[in-house]
Amino acid sequence: MGETNQTFERINFETSPERYRHIKLEINGPAATIKLNIQEEGGMREGYQLKLNSYDLGVDIELADAVQRLRFEHPEVTAVLVTSAQEGIFSAGANIFMLGSSAHAFKVNFCKYTNETRLSIEDATANSGQTYIAALNGIASGGGYELPLACEKIYLIEDRRSAVALPEVPYLGVLPGTGGLTRVVDKRKVRKDRADIFCTLAEGIKGKKAVEWGLVDEVFPSSRFWQEVEARVKQIAGAGRPDRKGVKLTPLQPELREDGIHYRHVKLLLGPTPRTARLEITGPAEIPAMPSDPSQLGADWYPLRVFREMDDALLHLRFNHPEIGLVLVSVKGDSDKVLQLDAQLQEHRKHWFVNEVLLFIRRTLKRMDYTAKSFFAIIDQGTCFAGTMLELALASDRAYMLDAKDVTIALSEFNGGAYPMGNGLTRIQTRFLNDADHAAAVAKLRGKLDAAEAEKQGLVTAAFDDIDWEDEIRLAVEERASMSPDALTGMEASLRFAGPETLETKIFGRLSAWQNWIFQRPNAVGEKGALTLYGRPERPEFDWRRT
Amino acid sequence: MGETNQTFERINFETSPERYRHIKLEINGPAATIKLNIQEEGGMREGYQLKLNSYDLGVDIELADAVQRLRFEHPEVTAVLVTSAQEGIFSAGANIFMLGSSAHAFKVNFCKYTNETRLSIEDATANSGQTYIAALNGIASGGGYELPLACEKIYLIEDRRSAVALPEVPYLGVLPGTGGLTRVVDKRKVRKDRADIFCTLAEGIKGKKAVEWGLVDEVFPSSRFWQEVEARVKQIAGAGRPDRKGVKLTPLQPELREDGIHYRHVKLLLGPTPRTARLEITGPAEIPAMPSDPSQLGADWYPLRVFREMDDALLHLRFNHPEIGLVLVSVKGDSDKVLQLDAQLQEHRKHWFVNEVLLFIRRTLKRMDYTAKSFFAIIDQGTCFAGTMLELALASDRAYMLDAKDVTIALSEFNGGAYPMGNGLTRIQTRFLNDADHAAAVAKLRGKLDAAEAEKQGLVTAAFDDIDWEDEIRLAVEERASMSPDALTGMEASLRFAGPETLETKIFGRLSAWQNWIFQRPNAVGEKGALTLYGRPERPEFDWRRT
Repeated sequence: MGETNQTFERINFETSPERYRHIKLEINGPAATIKLNIQEEGGMREGYQLKLNSYDLGVDIELADAVQRLRFEHPEVTAVLVTSAQEGIFSAGANIFMLGSSAHAFKVNFCKYTNETRLSIEDATANSGQTYIAALNGIASGGGYELPLACEKIYLIEDRRSAVALPEVPYLGVLPGTGGLTRVVDKRKVRKDRADIFCTLAEGIKGKKAVEWGLVDEVFPSSRFWQEVEARVKQIAGAGRPDRKGVKLTPLQPELREDGIHYRHVKLLLGPTPRTARLEITGPAEIPAMPSDPSQLGADWYPLRVFREMDDALLHLRFNHPEIGLVLVSVKGDSDKVLQLDAQLQEHRKHWFVNEVLLFIRRTLKRMDYTAKSFFAIIDQGTCFAGTMLELALASDRAYMLDAKDVTIALSEFNGGAYPMGNGLTRIQTRFLNDADHAAAVAKLRGKLDAAEAEKQGLVTAAFDDIDWEDEIRLAVEERASMSPDALTGMEASLRFAGPETLETKIFGRLSAWQNWIFQRPNAVGEKGALTLYGRPERPEFDWRRT
Repeated sequence: MGETNQTFERINFETSPERYRHIKLEINGPAATIKLNIQEEGGMREGYQLKLNSYDLGVDIELADAVQRLRFEHPEVTAVLVTSAQEGIFSAGANIFMLGSSAHAFKVNFCKYTNETRLSIEDATANSGQTYIAALNGIASGGGYELPLACEKIYLIEDRRSAVALPEVPYLGVLPGTGGLTRVVDKRKVRKDRADIFCTLAEGIKGKKAVEWGLVDEVFPSSRFWQEVEARVKQIAGAGRPDRKGVKLTPLQPELREDGIHYRHVKLLLGPTPRTARLEITGPAEIPAMPSDPSQLGADWYPLRVFREMDDALLHLRFNHPEIGLVLVSVKGDSDKVLQLDAQLQEHRKHWFVNEVLLFIRRTLKRMDYTAKSFFAIIDQGTCFAGTMLELALASDRAYMLDAKDVTIALSEFNGGAYPMGNGLTRIQTRFLNDADHAAAVAKLRGKLDAAEAEKQGLVTAAFDDIDWEDEIRLAVEERASMSPDALTGMEASLRFAGPETLETKIFGRLSAWQNWIFQRPNAVGEKGALTLYGRPERPEFDWRRT
């Protein structure tokens, strides 16, 4: 086996329930069920079998899709049960042979994506009124326990063999890196010495001890497991929300052309500077009047569509364009229309569909924050970086603005609070961490700001006039594209998240960084490393020096 | 050059001002000055020259010693000026050739130690009334700027060439990892896009722009630089504290024997299980009455002496015993005496010397939290894990207790707040993050707790009776010593710091973890890596894939 540079074929992140191979989504009034039934032969590439409900990226793409569709297409649902269709096994976690044979960058991006999926489950529970409940009808091991950790409740069958476990450290010499370590001590608040034992105990913990240690919420004997689980699901689901009519998420079906990916409102274009891409977004063309039921606007509604395209483009950037280090972001169109749309969203934000759209925009902006590429916002002729779209500039590492007539930016109410970052602050609060008063004042600015004013207020990094613009941008781009991609990743991960830390930033900051380190170490991925040798008769050989 | 497994000779962490080669410590009433005058030929080993006031571990050991001695030996001092004795250069930072030719584990431990030194500077400013002020009379680059970042005030000379800079990313493909990135955005709260420019700009930023961006506090032209700096030092120093009589820190001079290191109260013994050490601490023998001036107790006073020995032992463990993965911690003696000592410390804690001792114990316990070794506390016959000494058990990853007559633990007032961890919480609060009421109740427990009670209160991991004790401990030790050292490091770094994050935990969690990752990457340390090739005519060659 050994680590190879083998990459997947171009990965497609779009799917839909009728195409799921590994999970089954059932809706039953206010309660939905996601059943894991992972097909051994259904891996994304050759070289491994998805035994024991172990997963690869293909499975997680289906899971992420199901979570997303439940929010938009089944808003009546208030409880989601996650369980397994396979007897005696909930899930064995991420497939080890897939991990062991994947390139470093793929492993890192795979873990990041699965972390985002688990956070989206917590987001649905917290903000969409869809409470996730895990029914572990068998062993839940590694990532197979990290998924339940993202659920609000965990019920475990008590049958003398079913346990929860995080065996990564003893078996593989890597971490439970899909949020596992962080959630054990920071979400479930398991005592650190018990967490230490649990995370080094390959066989895991079962029965009453699992409850006592806080690893699961309740255990039930096999004879009444489903009965007890169903009673709890029923109670949590309550009456549901039958008045809500779902919105079908239609396929994006981008066109892959030679120069990049073309969506309806978004283009991801490669070059012309090496290792650089342009993310070109078109603003809204017209703002339809708000129907009495906003959900009638459907999946074609601009704010939903454009951020779905943006989200998909970010995933393509991560997985299918590893060589791209810098992304130039622009938004072109009519900023009045963007602000008009923001006002409409604001007016109706209590409606579930509008709320879901805003939550989705928030998640997409976070996906941008967590993407290991440099982002420069380019604010020039025809720009409409306003309100919601201005968040794309605030999320960027730098924002360059042309000092010219008609080139302006603008804020809306949303910049003041609709899209908090993972650290819990708005991008404006994080930006002006040194001056909370200024942050509050900036969030209240209305009207159009030209380059001089935007620079004065600290909203852009630099403004240049016509004469200097092209040279300055070219130099900045070339310079950025010449630096060590690893150093830039570490630097951006440190500079983007000033201020408080949360479960989420801890997962991407502390846990992921350690996992990335371990994923490079010979003790895990070397010829005699534990991950490499998993499933083979040889025992791993470690360099024992502690670092 | 290239990374080698070359290790230093056994490193000695004890020094004193008369032996300093690289820094000069001057005391002038209430103000002290630390002058960097690093000797090019004075590196800790062959292979590099410490040009331009660049430093290696040997320099940082002197700096850490000076900071420590200022607190204990010169308590009258209220302001400490850090500057350079070399014309036109403050410091070029960590020596690149030293870094480039050091083994991975050494680089990581070097960065950790220098981070702790910088945190001790901030601790002295915040808690000892010794305010550190940096006077940059020349270029301050890389670690040479990270040191001033740890000072309360930074003054920069304005002479057309002197700048502050963090050139690690563009020059070396690594991070400003001695707290630099974190302090720029989290302490000085520099706007993230400006921080992004600053950290990618090899030549740095000077003059008024450095002030405007918040990188330094003030700049002064050469003609009046020293005059302005002296005026500020004088103002910050005020009258000083001439009533305080310092306590001379006498040498520890441990004996190196075949079985390990022997101090007066502490023994660090290697084996018998491979990769395992025993840290055996002896409790206080007698408690002298408190003199009218507590500082008369001197450096031989038990609480100061034992934790100085402990601190030194931890450094030996990190640097001189990389193969040790697990440390068994025991404290033997009379727990009544420990509690009596705690009561005495508590009664006099407002006295500066007692306060310094408590602050030093706090720092040593944090040094243990940040040490990448597993710690198991072994609580058996003759144990005196009580009060302050109980913190050593609470800091351990696990605590095993013998269920037998006369084997007890006890709490004192100090467990409730004298020794907060890096996350700002006490070890008891962090332990019982799931139940703040229980944490508060446990902190108030007084009297001796036997194994059953200690286990019930959640203060120990497990209790075993005589029959099982030896087997259980042996099994736990052997098992721990068999696991991947890297996975354990990442696991412990995640489990030890539940709860809030602070500047300090961000440095050791987020920043250090990313730096460790980058220190393994071929783009930095491979044959064509930027760190490897620094100072040579060849340009680095990067694998451009972003991870």
